[in-house]
Amino acid sequence: MNKPAFSLDTRIEQDTSFIADGALSRIGLMNDSRYPWLILVPRVANAREWTELSDSQQLQLQTEINSCAQALQQVFPIGTKLNIAALGNVVSQLHIHVILRHKNDDAWPNPVWGFGQRTLYDERELKQTVSKLSSILNSANSL
Amino acid sequence: MNKPAFSLDTRIEQDTSFIADGALSRIGLMNDSRYPWLILVPRVANAREWTELSDSQQLQLQTEINSCAQALQQVFPIGTKLNIAALGNVVSQLHIHVILRHKNDDAWPNPVWGFGQRTLYDERELKQTVSKLSSILNSANSL
Repeated sequence: MNKPAFSLDTRIEQDTSFIADGALSRIGLMNDSRYPWLILVPRVANAREWTELSDSQQLQLQTEINSCAQALQQVFPIGTKLNIAALGNVVSQLHIHVILRHKNDDAWPNPVWGFGQRTLYDERELKQTVSKLSSILNSANSL
Repeated sequence: MNKPAFSLDTRIEQDTSFIADGALSRIGLMNDSRYPWLILVPRVANAREWTELSDSQQLQLQTEINSCAQALQQVFPIGTKLNIAALGNVVSQLHIHVILRHKNDDAWPNPVWGFGQRTLYDERELKQTVSKLSSILNSANSL
């Protein structure tokens, strides 16, 4: 039998712009300009839970979360607080949110999920943000 | 100068019952019987962010999260999905939520934070739950 192949959940694919591939995860920018927000999806077929990852995968995920947090803090130097979370109540494919929060952001101090309506980036802003984050995350030793 | 001492945030102390001390974190049960819910607080003075932990602390945190998830799944064999999150928008002391969600729970599929009113465990139920979780988490090699 063939090993089951990983495929990205279509909702995550629609909601995010590709930023970079880490050794473990596909990293995308959530298209919601209200919050600097990356989503990491470990490319592990059928994974639903963080705890299903092997020790080495968890270690790599940790490295990638650290890199994503740093990249967000570099591109958006306004952050007050990181929110790091694996929920998956709606989209069950394992994915980890790394979000930079600010005390003046729309949902503060509430969690961002399910709060109000998304504000899409305009095309130019999205392109620039993707480019900056990609460049940082693809730079040496960051993933 | 003395090293700053760790002290548990008073709100976390009030809202949780002590379960166990891992090598890194103080583990408590959130006193809200709507959800099986543990809160891990790394005993690192002034830590606010997951990413502030050293590599070895992050590794230990990962181990403790895995153990907490397993313990919850053992005591509450009804879980549909784990929610693992470090938010800290209200209480800034670094703390990690490990919550077992079920599709029939009060907030499903929304996040639990800020949803409705807490339902306290009754005294007997709290004592039993604390005892079961403590016993699992204090058993050999789990933390």
